[in-house]
Amino acid sequence: MESIKVALLGTGTAGGGTFRVLARNQEEITRRAGRAIEISLVGARDPGRARRVVGEGVRIEPDLLRAATDPAVEIVVELIGGQERARELVLAAIAAGKHVVTANKALLAHHGNEIFAAAQAAGVTVAFEAAVAGGIPIIKALREGLSGNRIEWIAGIINGTSNFILSEMRDRAVTFEAALARAQALGYAEADPSFDVEGIDAAHKLSILSAIAFGIPMQFSKIYTEGITRLTAADIRYAEELGYRIKLLGIARRSAAGIEMRVHPTLIPTRRLIANVEGVMNAVLVQADAVGVTLYYGAGAGAEPTASAVVADLVDVTRLHTADPENRVPHLAFQPNALASTPILPMSEVRTSYYLRLQVLDQPGVLADITRILADRSISIEAFLQKEPRAGQAEADIVVLTHQTLEKHVDAAIASIEALATVLGRVTRIRVEALG
Amino acid sequence: MESIKVALLGTGTAGGGTFRVLARNQEEITRRAGRAIEISLVGARDPGRARRVVGEGVRIEPDLLRAATDPAVEIVVELIGGQERARELVLAAIAAGKHVVTANKALLAHHGNEIFAAAQAAGVTVAFEAAVAGGIPIIKALREGLSGNRIEWIAGIINGTSNFILSEMRDRAVTFEAALARAQALGYAEADPSFDVEGIDAAHKLSILSAIAFGIPMQFSKIYTEGITRLTAADIRYAEELGYRIKLLGIARRSAAGIEMRVHPTLIPTRRLIANVEGVMNAVLVQADAVGVTLYYGAGAGAEPTASAVVADLVDVTRLHTADPENRVPHLAFQPNALASTPILPMSEVRTSYYLRLQVLDQPGVLADITRILADRSISIEAFLQKEPRAGQAEADIVVLTHQTLEKHVDAAIASIEALATVLGRVTRIRVEALG
Repeated sequence: MESIKVALLGTGTAGGGTFRVLARNQEEITRRAGRAIEISLVGARDPGRARRVVGEGVRIEPDLLRAATDPAVEIVVELIGGQERARELVLAAIAAGKHVVTANKALLAHHGNEIFAAAQAAGVTVAFEAAVAGGIPIIKALREGLSGNRIEWIAGIINGTSNFILSEMRDRAVTFEAALARAQALGYAEADPSFDVEGIDAAHKLSILSAIAFGIPMQFSKIYTEGITRLTAADIRYAEELGYRIKLLGIARRSAAGIEMRVHPTLIPTRRLIANVEGVMNAVLVQADAVGVTLYYGAGAGAEPTASAVVADLVDVTRLHTADPENRVPHLAFQPNALASTPILPMSEVRTSYYLRLQVLDQPGVLADITRILADRSISIEAFLQKEPRAGQAEADIVVLTHQTLEKHVDAAIASIEALATVLGRVTRIRVEALG
Repeated sequence: MESIKVALLGTGTAGGGTFRVLARNQEEITRRAGRAIEISLVGARDPGRARRVVGEGVRIEPDLLRAATDPAVEIVVELIGGQERARELVLAAIAAGKHVVTANKALLAHHGNEIFAAAQAAGVTVAFEAAVAGGIPIIKALREGLSGNRIEWIAGIINGTSNFILSEMRDRAVTFEAALARAQALGYAEADPSFDVEGIDAAHKLSILSAIAFGIPMQFSKIYTEGITRLTAADIRYAEELGYRIKLLGIARRSAAGIEMRVHPTLIPTRRLIANVEGVMNAVLVQADAVGVTLYYGAGAGAEPTASAVVADLVDVTRLHTADPENRVPHLAFQPNALASTPILPMSEVRTSYYLRLQVLDQPGVLADITRILADRSISIEAFLQKEPRAGQAEADIVVLTHQTLEKHVDAAIASIEALATVLGRVTRIRVEALG
């Protein structure tokens, strides 16, 4: 059978990796797909640089829009990143009847609903396995592997940079800033790391995971997002003492009232497998009604892990591109006319447990004040840690672990606690998930 | 669209679970598949018992062959287990043009090549996600999710009964027999547990995983299979002291010389995630060239985890049954005309590391004799543990961890060590995998 022709847009890390993996594993991929997958056209604004990546023998088109709509190709792989230009190119490719493969989570989080609707109307597929958790086939697992289940919640370490920084802070007992500097030196963090450390990248991915887990449209703007920049070495140490590890999690959970979607640092019991996912690795834990808990672990970024997911999508699209569009796996797992309008809960209505750390003057009655404030809001205490003041100091650290309660009750309790004269500065609040 | 009609053969644990999950999640499954999936016929030799499982409103057919070939159904789900009768029914269903979904690993390990060839010839699909690792979508991950990769090795905890027993032996410091009795009391082990504890069930699953990982036919008879019945509490304790945990692993590895396929107890570094998979849970670790290492974790057995995989297969088949058979995912991941005849290595040619435990008389020169025997076969020592004799006893335990070597060199070394007058009884040999 003739090879299927692909246009590759972008020859950076992901694009170069995809070109390399397709070339290296050509024989095995063809044995699987039943048909060769050939990058016959490369779209790159800097043809000289692109030529060094893809070598001779491939046409390079500096006009990306022409590459995205070239009549000779059937599939367009978008690996240029960014939002506006990528959106334009992907929509143009769809309008030209091309299937699209993309690794672009920011694009899908912001424009996914528009893009999927356009693809649906044009009868083409937009595949995006590489957009979440790199090489881990989590989109496939959720959308197809667990299709018999009602998915209850997802909790994922879906930003490798943040996970590396948290692992460093714990292993080497260093500050956030020192761990970030090391991540930057190793190439794991950008010069401007805010997308990663502020949780935005994780929120992009969580909006995709939530949609395919619950059959809802993508709703990035409704995700509560809190990064790791304010975590201290003390919090990581106290968490360890209490039997927990701190991870930046993306959590989506279905409750009777609606759907929670949130990205924040989270204490997880150390005995959980996912608490032991270290360095730049990713993992996604899924709780579903029939299968129970499953976990998917692997590299969340990097040239070849990303390429692994891109090529898997290429093989899927190659297989399916002649199929009746109605029989393809729907973009968001559920048929487009069967998406639900389940409300997304505001953070104040989220129910979880809490780690609260506060600095108090070491005086009689302080504890009684704090525990009364918590009791008044029906917040019950699961564990308590009091650190003696250091020699010559009057301030002591207190850590409280609460049972489950509503976020708004904790908001109110924190405000009251911070108003106490014996409490110094702000209360540190980190959410706790048992993931059991 | 009209519902797709399914015949369910068997209403035991897996069959009952499948019926229940399909009924409970009907709405979500239809939203995903775009079409209702309806069990319209149940094949069961004991209709009274089946009626109690499936309730009223479903036709029950006591003649399983008639159920498997009923003109009104398009898909047959085989959940009766066993080999000969299941083979007959599956082949009859295929001959009648039905797609088949099965959870039967013994059937596929022994008759898979015949069954897949028949399905290929008839243009139908045989789906078998539930046959390996229960609800974990590992078949889908390997066959589709990693299709861009050259898979290098797989190592899986794919028998929950054995893993439960090993967890018990470690947690409670009990013997194999005591742990087995507890597994039986909890319903995790059969009255005759040999399929599980002798590694046969794991070998069935490994033959399937190896085929789809490497693009080779199923070759169950070539798998080296060793169970957990001879493991002692002392081995588990010594392994812990050395930083390892003992798991029953199914391992398939590609080397320059051929493919290794083996099931045996294995020491794994405790820091590896898979070493921390406890109880009846399953996990499969995959090393592939592009993505690196990925891990898939979940329930490997039970009514609803099995049902989760069966229903996922039903949704896949429902989507694909109108597709051109050439564009379906091939049964063994690779196109049937592209399977490789890579040789399977005999165990003597396998290269790995070893834990050797021996009981010696506490005399001068014993260690020198043993280390000389190892050195003569170019087996180098990675770690060494000598246990002082207990008070009043002359025998001491010695544990040696070797670096990688060929199994045949270790066979020879063990024979020589056992021939020493100062060595009592047999040498215990457990293989060691770094899984790094």
